[in-house]
Amino acid sequence: MSTIRHLTSKIAQQIDEELMGASGTQFSLDQLMELAGLACAQTLAAVYKTDKHPRVLVCCGPGNQGGDGLVAARHLRMFGYKPSVYMPKPGSKDIYKRLQHQCTANDIPILNVQPDPITTLRSALDETDVVLDAIFGFSFQPPIRAPFDRVLRLIKESKKPVVSVDIPSGWDVEGGNTHDDTEGGGKVGLEPDVLISLTAPKEGVRLFKGRHFLGGRFVPAAFAERFQLNLPPYPGFDQIVELPSAGQKL
Amino acid sequence: MSTIRHLTSKIAQQIDEELMGASGTQFSLDQLMELAGLACAQTLAAVYKTDKHPRVLVCCGPGNQGGDGLVAARHLRMFGYKPSVYMPKPGSKDIYKRLQHQCTANDIPILNVQPDPITTLRSALDETDVVLDAIFGFSFQPPIRAPFDRVLRLIKESKKPVVSVDIPSGWDVEGGNTHDDTEGGGKVGLEPDVLISLTAPKEGVRLFKGRHFLGGRFVPAAFAERFQLNLPPYPGFDQIVELPSAGQKL
Repeated sequence: MSTIRHLTSKIAQQIDEELMGASGTQFSLDQLMELAGLACAQTLAAVYKTDKHPRVLVCCGPGNQGGDGLVAARHLRMFGYKPSVYMPKPGSKDIYKRLQHQCTANDIPILNVQPDPITTLRSALDETDVVLDAIFGFSFQPPIRAPFDRVLRLIKESKKPVVSVDIPSGWDVEGGNTHDDTEGGGKVGLEPDVLISLTAPKEGVRLFKGRHFLGGRFVPAAFAERFQLNLPPYPGFDQIVELPSAGQKL
Repeated sequence: MSTIRHLTSKIAQQIDEELMGASGTQFSLDQLMELAGLACAQTLAAVYKTDKHPRVLVCCGPGNQGGDGLVAARHLRMFGYKPSVYMPKPGSKDIYKRLQHQCTANDIPILNVQPDPITTLRSALDETDVVLDAIFGFSFQPPIRAPFDRVLRLIKESKKPVVSVDIPSGWDVEGGNTHDDTEGGGKVGLEPDVLISLTAPKEGVRLFKGRHFLGGRFVPAAFAERFQLNLPPYPGFDQIVELPSAGQKL
């Protein structure tokens, strides 16, 4: 059996364009984000149960990754969790506004980041059981802009369990957690316990040692073949499948 | 425990409007249809396994119900089925064209209904293991227009197992299978083996005796309370829940 393909940032971008493009599959962003966010919520729910980890802090960046987080927050609410959304730089696209509104309509607090987003995050982390990291996606390029540099440091310092979406925030999409933190000893990237790769894993997570899931069960077979993705079979009608961790055999 | 509410056509319409309206939850049709279609595909997969029932004939009407069917066909393909789409009157909205294109991109045949849709259906039924009925939804009003009158008769005559979406096609949304077939003895409505109600069951299916599932796990709690839907809990992070059949206690 061939091993699953790990994508460069460029190929991941190309796949997204083909999934949505007029000459491709013509998925809308609404469709893909709904399925991706559902897979993220299901992954968190597969590892952290509502009784022990009811309070989820969903940390959203300003791009599509943040949109996945907003969708995940809504599904987590449906699953019985108590999610809160931390979004210091809301995206400007219409879709984020709608997704944010849908959270509000589901009684999910969007945390007020005024006057200081770091103060907000610090107290939010005190009152959370698990963090969903939907900050940066596969188009991330360093350096990390404020306030996200401090956001990542605070999440790490909190020692709360972290579930990262697609690529742990701060990681080089192809190199892994290689960027130095200019203000301290280690690297800038989060070290999540759980990762949910979307469509296919990225190059940078080859050595990821936590529990690793795959979501995004919407890639046409002919398409997966053309890109030689070698995706594993999903069980039954599930929307996620667990992958072996680094070091384990496929 | 309160029993689940059965909706009139008018209330079902009102709920849909509030789920999508600017003053409501602001879901897009793309989002709701994706989740509804996924629930339909999962229901079929929960009852009819790929090994015994690989060939699914997805029969689509010209409205939103047909859209749910197109989404379901795509997910069924992902689950390992061999779906075909029978759509004698394709909807004109842009979303149906995109959903149809997504089926084609997933190698799902859209059956050619020329020169005669009935001939097409007859041979398609011969080569199918189970029918997904996504023809008429909760806004259905008799009389049934051609060719759907003959379509329903043929599906019944085929004796193939049928999974109906939301309301079995031909049924009165509030009264059940009450409309007489003008060309024969019985009633015009299908008698499905399985039903997947979306959001909440409709008045007309109170006496439905087959296996009955509920999907559409996207109704905000405050909203469900305001409409007194008394929805049952969904298990874990599933998108469908089986309901007791008529006669069984909740």
